[in-house]
Amino acid sequence: MGVISLLTDFGLSDPYVGELKGVLLRLAPSARLVDLTHGVRPGAIREGAWVLASGYGWFPAGTCHVAVVDPGVGGSRRGLVASSGGHFFVGPDNGLLVPALESAGGAEIREISVRDPEHVRRGTTFDGRDVFAPIAARLHAGAPLSSLGPEVHDPVPMAPFRPRPVDHGWEVEIVRVDRFGNLVTVADEGFLRRELGEDWRSASVRVGGSSVRGIRLAYGDVPAGQPLLSIGGGGTLEISVRGGSARRLLGVGAGARVRLMAPEEPR
Amino acid sequence: MGVISLLTDFGLSDPYVGELKGVLLRLAPSARLVDLTHGVRPGAIREGAWVLASGYGWFPAGTCHVAVVDPGVGGSRRGLVASSGGHFFVGPDNGLLVPALESAGGAEIREISVRDPEHVRRGTTFDGRDVFAPIAARLHAGAPLSSLGPEVHDPVPMAPFRPRPVDHGWEVEIVRVDRFGNLVTVADEGFLRRELGEDWRSASVRVGGSSVRGIRLAYGDVPAGQPLLSIGGGGTLEISVRGGSARRLLGVGAGARVRLMAPEEPR
Amino acid sequence: MGVISLLTDFGLSDPYVGELKGVLLRLAPSARLVDLTHGVRPGAIREGAWVLASGYGWFPAGTCHVAVVDPGVGGSRRGLVASSGGHFFVGPDNGLLVPALESAGGAEIREISVRDPEHVRRGTTFDGRDVFAPIAARLHAGAPLSSLGPEVHDPVPMAPFRPRPVDHGWEVEIVRVDRFGNLVTVADEGFLRRELGEDWRSASVRVGGSSVRGIRLAYGDVPAGQPLLSIGGGGTLEISVRGGSARRLLGVGAGARVRLMAPEEPR
Repeated sequence: MGVISLLTDFGLSDPYVGELKGVLLRLAPSARLVDLTHGVRPGAIREGAWVLASGYGWFPAGTCHVAVVDPGVGGSRRGLVASSGGHFFVGPDNGLLVPALESAGGAEIREISVRDPEHVRRGTTFDGRDVFAPIAARLHAGAPLSSLGPEVHDPVPMAPFRPRPVDHGWEVEIVRVDRFGNLVTVADEGFLRRELGEDWRSASVRVGGSSVRGIRLAYGDVPAGQPLLSIGGGGTLEISVRGGSARRLLGVGAGARVRLMAPEEPR
Repeated sequence: MGVISLLTDFGLSDPYVGELKGVLLRLAPSARLVDLTHGVRPGAIREGAWVLASGYGWFPAGTCHVAVVDPGVGGSRRGLVASSGGHFFVGPDNGLLVPALESAGGAEIREISVRDPEHVRRGTTFDGRDVFAPIAARLHAGAPLSSLGPEVHDPVPMAPFRPRPVDHGWEVEIVRVDRFGNLVTVADEGFLRRELGEDWRSASVRVGGSSVRGIRLAYGDVPAGQPLLSIGGGGTLEISVRGGSARRLLGVGAGARVRLMAPEEPR
Repeated sequence: MGVISLLTDFGLSDPYVGELKGVLLRLAPSARLVDLTHGVRPGAIREGAWVLASGYGWFPAGTCHVAVVDPGVGGSRRGLVASSGGHFFVGPDNGLLVPALESAGGAEIREISVRDPEHVRRGTTFDGRDVFAPIAARLHAGAPLSSLGPEVHDPVPMAPFRPRPVDHGWEVEIVRVDRFGNLVTVADEGFLRRELGEDWRSASVRVGGSSVRGIRLAYGDVPAGQPLLSIGGGGTLEISVRGGSARRLLGVGAGARVRLMAPEEPR
């Protein structure tokens, strides 16, 4: 009855997710399989790390999260299996799991050193199906982490998702752009309240050549076609356009930085 | 064992559907989750209403359908929970649920007035995960509709899906374009039989600059590259191109109107 | 508890897959439904046949695979139900099932001649939902193949997935291009070992105007932006570009042929 969630950059136009699920249905027939998403941009480890860290907590305690954004597959990078905050994680050692593991603290991380004998391997570039899925099945069956490999104390790191103080404000990373063209930043509501004070909803952002002021509750709070700020579903500052795409209107995308400015003092 | 179906405009490239399912797995662990589709065009309430109304009946009686096409999220629009024809429906009060509710008659509609205490909310723009999913979980657990909020007698309406009589025929809305480029209209087979009589399969349609005559049983009934009419999977008139895209060939899309004409009288 | 897998060219932007699953949930409520993929290019029977043949074996024995790439729907083409190698298959008689059936040998193939009386049919162009799903539900309930229709000994064939010997090498078909721009060929590792001998990893491929030499274990074995050969997840030769798209860099796609050449003899 345990849940296994899947996060990859495989997309859904290929049979890769389906084959991985076939293996899980074979090795863990009672598991519930659910997709967190397979739409991470190909090879975008940092974006995948963000999606995992902000998404995993919505799932039931005990969920095993298989995460695969893995341009180094086939090479010497390690595979990891870990537990943190009552959840389990399986994936490559390239920083992808790190923000999720750090978010709860007290992670136990192991290098995968067992291979499933029942599993027939083809090729060398599909560890999601050939290595990580069988490990998830073992976790689902109750295998202790210690049975899956030796402890790891030096996982490949991932730079934290955190605004950087600059003159007159903060530089804030756009970590992801969604289907609606919303620009998702790393500045969470706690940060905004702490740094900007009780008037935090009057903050403004400079992005592309434009300036957007005021953190709204609803897209409908501005006229159609106009940009706005809000706290998105992940709890962080987002830049949107009502009835349109902020990416298109403002001409910026994932990886870009915007300037966050505190509300102006009344003179 | 009950089924919860999901219909949104979220797409699958983002983690939004995954997070919503995480919440459902937490609050309704025994529910079966199934996607009706997440491919409604962003903000296209009318298209979503059509997909829900023509799709929900394929699911088992007792299914709870969560439908979210919700550009007004975060504002003052109400959330609705309803039952009709043995199915349950949860979603925003913007017309999205109305055609499905009217299709069976005798709907009971309530305004969502409870919030799940176990549920931690982030941001204000993701009611699918933060409001509608928890309500679906309550329905799944057997909560009576009356426990979820007061009755609503004035839901925001949706113009009916119905051909409009004009000189020498009917104006028929294209309500949706599918992956294959098929133009899905609102004219159902019952309407065609009733209005056009026993020779209904000889009807013709004027669309873009072209005229297409004869409602076929199979795409193979016309040469490759040629347009044809058929009764599609939703039971309504569709305009297709064999081995091609009617949208591309004819240059029309969702929201356009075509002219339907009765078979010509023999002279 | 049996598994029903789904492979189609429906995509996920339309409600077609959702409606098909609704029918399965109604007629086979205890089945586990899983998507192999719905991203086969519209009408690409050969690509679908490849995906089914290389993918089905990852699923548990006893899985029923519903495969629908069906441009001939509505016409006179037969519907098939078959078993082979401990798996079941349902789909159109257009070659789609053939490579999977032949891969295990000893297939029993029947023409679907029963229709589900509980099933209300709309239109004539959605046999996936209206014919094949109900048959899968019957199989799931334990119906013997012989109860579903008469034996078929002449299914529509599909040309085998096999390199063709030419002067100085083999002509190898690109059967599929994936999300990452990898060019998936039909030359499997067994073929390469057999034909090229122990030095098989030194083979080269001429594709577009370029020549790529050496079958690698990891994308990281070449510099970023460079093309490479590997054995992909399906066990066959793939042409990739590290951190990029081989389709874009080399300008070839599905259906194209490349030239495979044996390692050069040392002089």
